Amino acid sequence: MKPNLIRRVVAEFIGTLLLLAAVVGSGIMAECLSAGNVAIALLANTVATGAALIAIILAFGPVSGAHLNPAVTLADAWIKGIPWREVPAYILAQLTGAITGVAAAHLMFGLPVFSVSIHVRSGPGQIFSEFVATFGLLAVIWGCARTRPTAVPFAVGAYITAAYWFTASTSFANPAVTIARCMTNTFAGIRPSDVAPFVAAQLAGAACATLLFQWLLPRAITPPDILVKQAQN
Amino acid sequence: MKPNLIRRVVAEFIGTLLLLAAVVGSGIMAECLSAGNVAIALLANTVATGAALIAIILAFGPVSGAHLNPAVTLADAWIKGIPWREVPAYILAQLTGAITGVAAAHLMFGLPVFSVSIHVRSGPGQIFSEFVATFGLLAVIWGCARTRPTAVPFAVGAYITAAYWFTASTSFANPAVTIARCMTNTFAGIRPSDVAPFVAAQLAGAACATLLFQWLLPRAITPPDILVKQAQN
Amino acid sequence: MKPNLIRRVVAEFIGTLLLLAAVVGSGIMAECLSAGNVAIALLANTVATGAALIAIILAFGPVSGAHLNPAVTLADAWIKGIPWREVPAYILAQLTGAITGVAAAHLMFGLPVFSVSIHVRSGPGQIFSEFVATFGLLAVIWGCARTRPTAVPFAVGAYITAAYWFTASTSFANPAVTIARCMTNTFAGIRPSDVAPFVAAQLAGAACATLLFQWLLPRAITPPDILVKQAQN
Amino acid sequence: MKPNLIRRVVAEFIGTLLLLAAVVGSGIMAECLSAGNVAIALLANTVATGAALIAIILAFGPVSGAHLNPAVTLADAWIKGIPWREVPAYILAQLTGAITGVAAAHLMFGLPVFSVSIHVRSGPGQIFSEFVATFGLLAVIWGCARTRPTAVPFAVGAYITAAYWFTASTSFANPAVTIARCMTNTFAGIRPSDVAPFVAAQLAGAACATLLFQWLLPRAITPPDILVKQAQN
Repeated sequence: MKPNLIRRVVAEFIGTLLLLAAVVGSGIMAECLSAGNVAIALLANTVATGAALIAIILAFGPVSGAHLNPAVTLADAWIKGIPWREVPAYILAQLTGAITGVAAAHLMFGLPVFSVSIHVRSGPGQIFSEFVATFGLLAVIWGCARTRPTAVPFAVGAYITAAYWFTASTSFANPAVTIARCMTNTFAGIRPSDVAPFVAAQLAGAACATLLFQWLLPRAITPPDILVKQAQN
Repeated sequence: MKPNLIRRVVAEFIGTLLLLAAVVGSGIMAECLSAGNVAIALLANTVATGAALIAIILAFGPVSGAHLNPAVTLADAWIKGIPWREVPAYILAQLTGAITGVAAAHLMFGLPVFSVSIHVRSGPGQIFSEFVATFGLLAVIWGCARTRPTAVPFAVGAYITAAYWFTASTSFANPAVTIARCMTNTFAGIRPSDVAPFVAAQLAGAACATLLFQWLLPRAITPPDILVKQAQN
Repeated sequence: MKPNLIRRVVAEFIGTLLLLAAVVGSGIMAECLSAGNVAIALLANTVATGAALIAIILAFGPVSGAHLNPAVTLADAWIKGIPWREVPAYILAQLTGAITGVAAAHLMFGLPVFSVSIHVRSGPGQIFSEFVATFGLLAVIWGCARTRPTAVPFAVGAYITAAYWFTASTSFANPAVTIARCMTNTFAGIRPSDVAPFVAAQLAGAACATLLFQWLLPRAITPPDILVKQAQN
Repeated sequence: MKPNLIRRVVAEFIGTLLLLAAVVGSGIMAECLSAGNVAIALLANTVATGAALIAIILAFGPVSGAHLNPAVTLADAWIKGIPWREVPAYILAQLTGAITGVAAAHLMFGLPVFSVSIHVRSGPGQIFSEFVATFGLLAVIWGCARTRPTAVPFAVGAYITAAYWFTASTSFANPAVTIARCMTNTFAGIRPSDVAPFVAAQLAGAACATLLFQWLLPRAITPPDILVKQAQN
């Protein structure tokens, strides 16, 4: 009864669009209202992003799984949760959705559709932060996804709420989000030249967490189809 | 075993009353205590509104479905979730409940029962924000309502928590709320002349999300009665 | 399999003790750290109280129902949820637990065991606020308690989080809490002469919500025992 | 089907590592951004820690139970939830994970791998606070663990969110966390000479709550294996 690919891809597009609208839009609002107190701005940005993730994953999870993140899609394909042939469509939808979401945030706040960020996010601490952030994100997903799927929206929302504060990079943890955020010269932006190392660290973190959970909790990363077959035998 | 219409209408009245008391009352308290820091005031207003939605939908959902919102009632009637003949009573209860809730907030804080807002909320960014806000709200509702109804209170509370920050209009997303908020010249107010474009954008957003989910996840918007009949055949 | 009365009374005592330690302790910490910004202090006090309620009701609910509140115990006895003969023991445990919790908070922060509050909380807005606050609290409880008891801790925690901000009185909504809070001359205190009107308004609000839900959702306030018998016939 | 000891020990190591990275990392970020307003810094630290606990317990609970805390492991062994012979491996994993987590936080923020804290946390109020904090934590765990295990991550996250504010010590409530936090001279640090009294008070609080719940709710602390056998007889 899985929805067909075109429906799932549209769900990934709209879901990632709303996610980026939330991340970038709440950053603009927070910076605008906080009178220079960056802690209050980041706290508002954090609450909005964590809550948006809960709502968006609840809304689009039943359609596409609500990956909203190429690192999640690649890891899921690796453990045979989604066929490799569907991966390009998922990632394309996530990237275009993310970029459209940045434009939507800018239009809501009366800003130019796109602007190039000059926000420097570089150095080993930032790169290591993205590794840790994405390692943790995938650990949380693999720890819940198969055995308690109804907890995933809350687990992911809670994890990103925490990771905005405990990583030096404010936890992008998502290649599509990272690429899209170089197109906004606002609170949430990232300089284009800092994107590639972020994405590399994110993919490395996702791979390590997936390897760890393949060993730690094998049933956690068995695709649902195989679990059903095992139960039938 | 559905409660009769009069009980459901009273539940919509009391539920929307409490929602507006929460939105307007927490705005008054927040503005009063925050010493001019609008980010802190909006953060308090956000936390109070999101939490109030969770509690109110949990409390009145078993009686009336806890629509609390004419856009939700109209969309639900469109997909045959509620009969059209019950719509006027629902909307009247929401409107009168919302207005009574504003009065209740004013009385709690020792203000005149009503006051006309002079808070300007206009321009294309604000209107587009209300379209996005209500599109997202209905997407979240349709994504959960039929398949995981116990998640709806948390999904809606989380969504509005996020949308207060990521839309330029602080996400009214509700025609009854919008009309009632022009009667309070406090933090949450809106100038009467700005109400009509807000409501139009909200209805357009709700319609687009409902159309999208009719195609995206057909079972998500099948009325529960039909789902039961299908399961019996 | 209900635990015997002495166990339930001890659970009410310890639960209300922890609740008051949380309300008063977080108020002291918040006032101490917030450098005079009352909005930030109240936000911290709110987050701590709402989260404490979730944890305490989850912990002690399986033992005693986690009333922690004489207004809840009286309303529950009224609808035959608890026998009247157990009410005095419950209320005594709540009162002594609440007072002991204030002492515990004071000892943690190195203050005298008790101090008489001089915090004025009077006037019709404050009294009406306590009516609304307790009406809403009981509405939330009756809306969830019988049909979705697992949601009660989250519903009550969310409701009080909201009500701290949307009522002018910061929502005491609990006679035991009100009496105990006149013994702390800190952020959460209330002048002893303001206690009686608060308690009267709380009991009136609880009665109105209970009457409303007796009509609105009769099965919501049928005691669990009778529900079981009905299911057996 | 319980995972073998080595997997469970690795889960305790990684889970406690992430917990300390969250506690220490968010403290560094919060202090850095809050411009001297300690209430805002602690609020950010609180939100991050509570959310991290929810995510980490959801992720690693299915593998090892996600104790992340020697006081929990000792109490669980006491009531025969885990065999005594596995306790040293659990505690060693928690201690080394906690210390590695501090190093991870420091590396993310470009600080030396370890630094000795000079943050004084002493006096009877602080010690009594740790007793109360850990008593409450174990009460919350025993109140949920056997009868509603899916609520544990949310109960623990909510409890610590509250306890950061209502205890004078900001609720360490965990010997491994306490020892590791003396190795960071940042917001979350504790002077090494203050560690021993904290740990003693934590163990006393854990013991009292475990004794209380053995009497209050005997089935709450019956090991799952015995519950299964009772159901079979």
